Amino acid sequence: MYIVLAPNTGNTMNLLIATLASSRHFNCEIPGANFKSASPISRFPLRTAHQFNSSSSLFSFTHEVAAERARKEQHAMPDNGKLRWGIAGCGRISNDFVAALTTLPSGEHEVAAVAARDRVRSEEFAKRFGIPKVYHSYEALAEDDQIDVIYIGTVNSEHTKLCKQMLHHKKHVLCEKPLTLRLQDTKDLFAFARQNGKFLMEAIWTRTFPAYKQLKSEIEQQTIGDVQLVTANFGCNAPNVPSLAQRNLGGGVLLNVGCYMIQLATLVFPNKMPTSIKAAATLNDDGVDETTAITLQYEDGAIAQFLMSTRVELDSAARIVGSEGTIEIEAPFLAPTQMLTPSGKYHFVLPFIDEKFPTNFINSAGLSYEAAEVRRCILAGELECPWMTHADSILDAEIIEKICKEIKVNYD
Amino acid sequence: MYIVLAPNTGNTMNLLIATLASSRHFNCEIPGANFKSASPISRFPLRTAHQFNSSSSLFSFTHEVAAERARKEQHAMPDNGKLRWGIAGCGRISNDFVAALTTLPSGEHEVAAVAARDRVRSEEFAKRFGIPKVYHSYEALAEDDQIDVIYIGTVNSEHTKLCKQMLHHKKHVLCEKPLTLRLQDTKDLFAFARQNGKFLMEAIWTRTFPAYKQLKSEIEQQTIGDVQLVTANFGCNAPNVPSLAQRNLGGGVLLNVGCYMIQLATLVFPNKMPTSIKAAATLNDDGVDETTAITLQYEDGAIAQFLMSTRVELDSAARIVGSEGTIEIEAPFLAPTQMLTPSGKYHFVLPFIDEKFPTNFINSAGLSYEAAEVRRCILAGELECPWMTHADSILDAEIIEKICKEIKVNYD
Repeated sequence: MYIVLAPNTGNTMNLLIATLASSRHFNCEIPGANFKSASPISRFPLRTAHQFNSSSSLFSFTHEVAAERARKEQHAMPDNGKLRWGIAGCGRISNDFVAALTTLPSGEHEVAAVAARDRVRSEEFAKRFGIPKVYHSYEALAEDDQIDVIYIGTVNSEHTKLCKQMLHHKKHVLCEKPLTLRLQDTKDLFAFARQNGKFLMEAIWTRTFPAYKQLKSEIEQQTIGDVQLVTANFGCNAPNVPSLAQRNLGGGVLLNVGCYMIQLATLVFPNKMPTSIKAAATLNDDGVDETTAITLQYEDGAIAQFLMSTRVELDSAARIVGSEGTIEIEAPFLAPTQMLTPSGKYHFVLPFIDEKFPTNFINSAGLSYEAAEVRRCILAGELECPWMTHADSILDAEIIEKICKEIKVNYD
Repeated sequence: MYIVLAPNTGNTMNLLIATLASSRHFNCEIPGANFKSASPISRFPLRTAHQFNSSSSLFSFTHEVAAERARKEQHAMPDNGKLRWGIAGCGRISNDFVAALTTLPSGEHEVAAVAARDRVRSEEFAKRFGIPKVYHSYEALAEDDQIDVIYIGTVNSEHTKLCKQMLHHKKHVLCEKPLTLRLQDTKDLFAFARQNGKFLMEAIWTRTFPAYKQLKSEIEQQTIGDVQLVTANFGCNAPNVPSLAQRNLGGGVLLNVGCYMIQLATLVFPNKMPTSIKAAATLNDDGVDETTAITLQYEDGAIAQFLMSTRVELDSAARIVGSEGTIEIEAPFLAPTQMLTPSGKYHFVLPFIDEKFPTNFINSAGLSYEAAEVRRCILAGELECPWMTHADSILDAEIIEKICKEIKVNYD
């Protein structure tokens, strides 16, 4: 028997969930969920009512949280609930983000403008996706009062400045990782966002994948007991890509790839700073890391071990081993569709991006999960995403900064 | 097309190799190889003569080495070339070792005696394998002048003392890993063996597997270019096995499992001490490590990353990543039968142990490779095994001692 779960994806689904909710197999509250179209859908085999109840906590929120959210909604709703996106930067990840937006209901998301310094590329980008406005400066994008939220997909070294610029102009912001190149900048940026009363999220899209929501739920419910070990690898052979290789652009495998591993550790060990951080790396001629091996140890002895490279290909699976069982997140663990838990194998079907919008990154249709979540937060008047909070980003940045010190990489 | 390679395994094979040697596909010298029966056999697909020439170096020795060996053979040959084994300790690994010996020609290996303190167990052991003599002290075994070589399979903490006892009585020795619990003891032991003119080998059986001989050949010939990364995992859920858990027995995952990983690193980076050794571990109540994560870094930046546990199950595969390609040693990497290289997939068929001799460890029929190699060395008057030299064991022990210091485990 299959239960079809589709957060933020449609009226049809709403009806299905409502029907299921009345059955004995479905017993959860979904005050914050927003079911609006039949795609994407996520399936998993339902073996027992107990097992399903466990999964249902994905959508369970306390009454207090729901009430607080409803209060905020009074003054945070954009016109008609349609979120108007401005895109800063028109590179590969921006392409995939906008392509992913096409899988969401057009009544909910609109790409209103794109801005980039390169006139030819930005105009091509706008044409590709039918975006009505093109700006050739980020300042002009920031000043457009017909835009609700900015997606920042530029090179890393531009992130901090652009975030501030957009927040200053009262835009909500979803900014690609890493949010900044230094811990203090990350802290300052979140403080600035709060001062301006605007939503800010580091675009760790991973956290908004259904598999990660399920993972978080399983960890919280200790379905694998106490976590003892977390492992993940990720490696690609791309040593000469400027954004990965150049220090002045915020290159380095830790900053660009390692963040996916660090966020896994901080999801599994929430709010915990490792008691020991050890790392070794091979640096390139520009002084940023190409291959990095990391070991984090936590207060109770639990260990996280990661390996990452922009020089060699590696599997990109992750594993969380607990005292009572193991969860395996199949490759690519940073954008997963399959996960093996003690209760069975989960398969989460990605949305489908039309072939007329070619994408660059594996499973990048999953950027739609992140976009949908950003909309949900903004509609609800939330200043941070509960799946990737400000505290999460700050903790990750602190660990990353300590590792950088250990491997002698610095971005000053 | 298949070429069947069978070192130390038979006359039939000898004939086959001789025939092949006259063909254009086979072009190697095999002065030290000893082909004596049709099993075990190791197969691999042969695609080009060049590829086979590469593999053939497994058996190629310089004329100098062969001449030196012939000279030594004059005064080192046991009667009739049959090696008479004495077994010290009758636990699980000794069982598997003697079971593996049954796969070798009875004209080449004979188990002459077994010794253990437990009278019931040792007599059962002797009965199981039809061993003619049972001793209830190791001293008595050492004094038996009808024995050529002792296999030591006792608990770790007994190894050093027993090795010395056997060497003192002019026995050759194959001793289970770890040879000792401390670097200095390892050095002393090899010096003692040399003083006594006897063969001594730390029983890292892994090194004598055909897959590892092939691996060593590929590394030396740089078929994957410069090695940049070595990874391996091994984990089993056996936290309460005394020999793994108790400090006074030489327990701990590093000493008992980690040695397989360290030897992989020192095979790939021969004679090199890492420039940086980092490790984190979870210790048990007795002060030995249950889960250990290790990062070794070498002078040129290459990294070895290992993860091992006696607390949780882990894959036990290994990977060697070079600038030009990757070699994957499939699980179990410490006793492998399958290996993936840039030139194709190798499958090495294990000898077959009769079902009347049940074994304890995976692929333990491969202990016969080690036993056959010990015989070859002793016949040739060699004091150390070229696949696992004294220097190899000392280097491994030095790295292990440094890791022990790092994770605060000591055996003093």
